Amino acid sequence: MPISKGTQAFPRAEYLRRLVAVKAEMARRDVDVLVVTSTPNISYLTGNRTRITALHAVVVSIHKEEPAFIVRRIDVPGGFHQTFLERDNVIGYPEKLIGNPDKNGFDAVIDYIHELGHANRGVGLEFGYLTAQASEKFKARLPKARIVDCTKAVDWIRMVKSDLEITVMREVAAISDAGMMRAAEVIRPGVREADAAAEIVGTLLRGAKGKPGTDMPAILMCSSPRTGTPHVQWSEDVFRDGSQINLEFGGRRHGYAVGIMRTFTIGAPSDRLRRLHEAEVAGLEAALDTVRPGRTCSDVANAFYRKLTSMGFEKDTRCGYPIGIDWTEPTASLNDGDMTELKPNMTFHLMLGNWIDEDFGYVISETFRVTDAGVEVLTSVPRKIFEL
Amino acid sequence: MPISKGTQAFPRAEYLRRLVAVKAEMARRDVDVLVVTSTPNISYLTGNRTRITALHAVVVSIHKEEPAFIVRRIDVPGGFHQTFLERDNVIGYPEKLIGNPDKNGFDAVIDYIHELGHANRGVGLEFGYLTAQASEKFKARLPKARIVDCTKAVDWIRMVKSDLEITVMREVAAISDAGMMRAAEVIRPGVREADAAAEIVGTLLRGAKGKPGTDMPAILMCSSPRTGTPHVQWSEDVFRDGSQINLEFGGRRHGYAVGIMRTFTIGAPSDRLRRLHEAEVAGLEAALDTVRPGRTCSDVANAFYRKLTSMGFEKDTRCGYPIGIDWTEPTASLNDGDMTELKPNMTFHLMLGNWIDEDFGYVISETFRVTDAGVEVLTSVPRKIFEL
Repeated sequence: MPISKGTQAFPRAEYLRRLVAVKAEMARRDVDVLVVTSTPNISYLTGNRTRITALHAVVVSIHKEEPAFIVRRIDVPGGFHQTFLERDNVIGYPEKLIGNPDKNGFDAVIDYIHELGHANRGVGLEFGYLTAQASEKFKARLPKARIVDCTKAVDWIRMVKSDLEITVMREVAAISDAGMMRAAEVIRPGVREADAAAEIVGTLLRGAKGKPGTDMPAILMCSSPRTGTPHVQWSEDVFRDGSQINLEFGGRRHGYAVGIMRTFTIGAPSDRLRRLHEAEVAGLEAALDTVRPGRTCSDVANAFYRKLTSMGFEKDTRCGYPIGIDWTEPTASLNDGDMTELKPNMTFHLMLGNWIDEDFGYVISETFRVTDAGVEVLTSVPRKIFEL
Repeated sequence: MPISKGTQAFPRAEYLRRLVAVKAEMARRDVDVLVVTSTPNISYLTGNRTRITALHAVVVSIHKEEPAFIVRRIDVPGGFHQTFLERDNVIGYPEKLIGNPDKNGFDAVIDYIHELGHANRGVGLEFGYLTAQASEKFKARLPKARIVDCTKAVDWIRMVKSDLEITVMREVAAISDAGMMRAAEVIRPGVREADAAAEIVGTLLRGAKGKPGTDMPAILMCSSPRTGTPHVQWSEDVFRDGSQINLEFGGRRHGYAVGIMRTFTIGAPSDRLRRLHEAEVAGLEAALDTVRPGRTCSDVANAFYRKLTSMGFEKDTRCGYPIGIDWTEPTASLNDGDMTELKPNMTFHLMLGNWIDEDFGYVISETFRVTDAGVEVLTSVPRKIFEL
């Protein structure tokens, strides 16, 4: 019996809206066909969250309403079940292309472009997400095409969310909040970091307000002596009296992530940490007060940097990035000099982690949405050092 | 205060052993410097598991004992803490290379190759893991080098494990087993799939025999009506009477994964499913009986295929792959025609998932090690359909 459609996170109209925007950009760049290979961009255009391990791509034709989703044969049922696509538009390629030194899944994608009759037209590729070997294959097997680098074309479109996406991100924010409050319950002297991580991820999957997490999140748990570094996971240590713990994670639903960071101490924080916290919260509030349509990413970052500097600290990294499917979107930065203009329904992780010395760092963040007139902060954990 | 070294998963001698093998391969290919950009290969050569998001690389020089680990400045403390490298060999590049359209972290890597004086020698790159844009940068900025494609050079070396790696993989196997037995306790009619996933991942992090999981695992939970597809995660559904659930996951320690798959039914399995299970287990045992040094991957796969066919079923996908750091190693396949010879301490995920119809699939797997005389199966969950 053929597999049925699964419950869809978004109605068909939402995906068609996204595709209209992509096709307008394709027309502007004079490409008839766009080959999308970035995992979050594929999810954005189809709803796919199947963890496909073999090569696969979405092919958008400017002449067809739906794109084609070209996957290994065994991933066709999952691809049809999870996405909004009609059955004929989830196309399986044969198993003989797996582990084959001469031909692979991208040969099936190129064959499809030839079948479409677009092999002598403008063909857009995401060179920034393709390996050198894959790029050479596309160029060699599409010798008459005008190949156009369309890296980040879809990423820039997905930077502005629909109201439906914002609804999902509010659900995810509630999950992120629940995870952080759970951390405050389970981090105690003598507890293994791994056991605390187990409790936090459990909360992120069980979810909040009746909405479970639907993807596995990452957890960064930088505890003493690792508080001066941003990207380590939990260790095999136990928490100790006097430990500091810098946490970063976020819930996930339908691929969307909402980030949250907070700093924990077992016992009282040092005076230096408390002063940094006060400066960071003041900077965070100054940054949020700056958010509104027409302001730039640079304006928001500089509001933070000015306040922080006035209170005696510096931060030499950016203040955040757009967030959505699979966490970081590789477009704008909340950074001095980034003149990207804020628009309603852009969403950012205002990420104010500050790693000053090898043994002195602090983290705080919020995820916010640009509204018609200002800002909506999606996360709602108290802006404090959690003293345990 | 500078950060201290963290607890190391392996002694320095183990990393130097791996580097001797890599340098011998470099000499064979006549390259003086090898730029390693694949995440599992970096982990293999240094012990790094920091989740670095910005561009980074390990540069192995044939003339130096230790490689250099070149990372974004803020990742230096984590990189030093987690790896076996001396402080001077973890090199930070400045923040101005982040979000910069003209220069990025690979410019720092290329600068380092120039500083080494190797810019006019053989330089190995992993083209299969580099984007087209990155490859062009290396070629443009190393015009006098003889660039050699070294994709999978390190991957083939890490296919044969040391006894120390096998010890870690046995620890991980016990965690994988514990996760599957926990699944059998928590999957019940009316339970949400997300809640079961939370319990399983909690077990995988808490670990087994006093050894926690140290990396976040993935969980694939393909339950009715998704049993004909291999790669979906849990859904928002609840389990129901009559549901079938195909599970695939594995514990993780120090980057190493050990895979396990089992099929669950709520109520009695169908006759067809029971017959497929019997054929698959017979095939699994035939495959394991075939494993010994000198036999080929093809021999193992064909032992399975022959038995399965003799019992009335077919499987059109490969029977597995080498497994180690970050799960699948992209080298050999347990597949008809793969003449890779088995050697002691190779480890494979004998992955016998079989997705026959869109509504009919079955999974079972074991992770095994090739011994001096035969096989050691690392996982030890009963080879049954778990009837709940």
